[in-house]
Amino acid sequence: MRIGFIGLGVMGRPMAGHLIAAGHELALHRVKEASRALVEAGGTEAESARAAAEGAEAVILMLPDTPDVEEVLFGADGVAQGIGPGALVIDMSSISPVATKAFAARIEGQGALWLDAPVSGGEAGARNAALTIMCGGSEEAFAKARPLLEVMGKRITHVGPAGDGQTAKVCNQVIVGLTIEAVAEALTLARAAGADPARVREALLGGFADSTILKVHGERMIAETFDPGFRIRLHRKDMSLAVEAARALDLALPNAAAVQQLMNAAVARGDGDLDHSALIRTLAALSGR
Amino acid sequence: MRIGFIGLGVMGRPMAGHLIAAGHELALHRVKEASRALVEAGGTEAESARAAAEGAEAVILMLPDTPDVEEVLFGADGVAQGIGPGALVIDMSSISPVATKAFAARIEGQGALWLDAPVSGGEAGARNAALTIMCGGSEEAFAKARPLLEVMGKRITHVGPAGDGQTAKVCNQVIVGLTIEAVAEALTLARAAGADPARVREALLGGFADSTILKVHGERMIAETFDPGFRIRLHRKDMSLAVEAARALDLALPNAAAVQQLMNAAVARGDGDLDHSALIRTLAALSGR
Repeated sequence: MRIGFIGLGVMGRPMAGHLIAAGHELALHRVKEASRALVEAGGTEAESARAAAEGAEAVILMLPDTPDVEEVLFGADGVAQGIGPGALVIDMSSISPVATKAFAARIEGQGALWLDAPVSGGEAGARNAALTIMCGGSEEAFAKARPLLEVMGKRITHVGPAGDGQTAKVCNQVIVGLTIEAVAEALTLARAAGADPARVREALLGGFADSTILKVHGERMIAETFDPGFRIRLHRKDMSLAVEAARALDLALPNAAAVQQLMNAAVARGDGDLDHSALIRTLAALSGR
Repeated sequence: MRIGFIGLGVMGRPMAGHLIAAGHELALHRVKEASRALVEAGGTEAESARAAAEGAEAVILMLPDTPDVEEVLFGADGVAQGIGPGALVIDMSSISPVATKAFAARIEGQGALWLDAPVSGGEAGARNAALTIMCGGSEEAFAKARPLLEVMGKRITHVGPAGDGQTAKVCNQVIVGLTIEAVAEALTLARAAGADPARVREALLGGFADSTILKVHGERMIAETFDPGFRIRLHRKDMSLAVEAARALDLALPNAAAVQQLMNAAVARGDGDLDHSALIRTLAALSGR
């Protein structure tokens, strides 16, 4: 299949690589030094988002944030100017669910198909083609995108109509962020009370407090190994998406807001590029520990 | 073994029943109508906590809160007046870790042994002898208590010295409470954004957001089945233990405090006797939903 691919960062590069390896013809926009290998592997360079979309059956975006997606879709020489009727836009970026619904309506309004398909699993998931992918869009869009998504991911769920993939991703990041903070509060309390946090964590594994976060991030907190993983700086962006969605929907999410603030503090303290489990450092520092 | 047992509530009754069935001689204090069957099964009545402790190798407490434990231990005709040297006090109540350390010092000061051994697993865990038990005390106290604890529970961990069992229990309740709130925020956001919360939950299972709470309590939230389970009223007591411990230790636990407040609101709204997963109702009501 001829595919336009825009967004060749840490995540996008291995994802595009898997598609090329699977035999697809990729038109790559914004090829830089780090993504040169994709051209050598068979990809072609497109001088604009519009050029990447022209003649493509699908255009895949993997961009940092909402304004980037809006610019690439609807800016000068954007995807919307190049995409043909019946072609498919798959936005795999993690961006605003509210903005996504508006983007989908505009793309569908000109006769193309839309799927929002944000991922979780990070750089390792992208490299190993093991991403979890949460999809929002029509049945038709999902069915058409699925074979491409299966080249990049493992757990692929069609959540609902356009925007629901981004909603699920934001919900995922809210739960992950708040559970990390919960484990950090508990282990900080354990240490302050004079108990061994490692023994407390062991006592809790297997009970109602058990979670992937207690297993994985709890261990990082105790060992104080904070190499990312997933950077606090990036998780902070996702918490901001939750807080902005809550404002747009007139919804109070008190602990999502509190965790966003702690992440602001973590970045201020110079921990923005540590793994999100390092939030325990900010929590401890709050009480001078 | 001759055992004094004080606290024959919903949890204490089946726990005492397992000990009698295992062949122990139980001296029961405060036998009421609901616990009459324990006397018929072979237990004897003790007219005071002191009388239950006299001649006993171990005294087990399963009481509602810190002041109850203090009164039964050190009040008029209390356990401290009856317990012999070398005998063991096992406090299986969920109470203050800070107060527990003081109680342990007083009991050990008169030549007896101390173990705090709070449980999780609720009424079902007590009935099925499947409680998780978190222990604080000396190696000697833990070794002596272990055969008794194995009659009542399955996962039994010696966390550390006296008080550490209660600290682990409070940490457990902090993580459980905050994770329930996290899942409630995510599912409320999903619904408000127009997505199907059940589909969002399915998309998240198996990823980093996965937890026993997302599986069990997330399902209750979606089905709106809030029969306890574990009552918000009781979990609120445990959150208060966390907040009080944080104050005693000069430690800021922002989200534990926020969840305690939401539980105050839940009780105020008449939801105190619903399962703690019903916290999602309070969160939704906060935004008039």
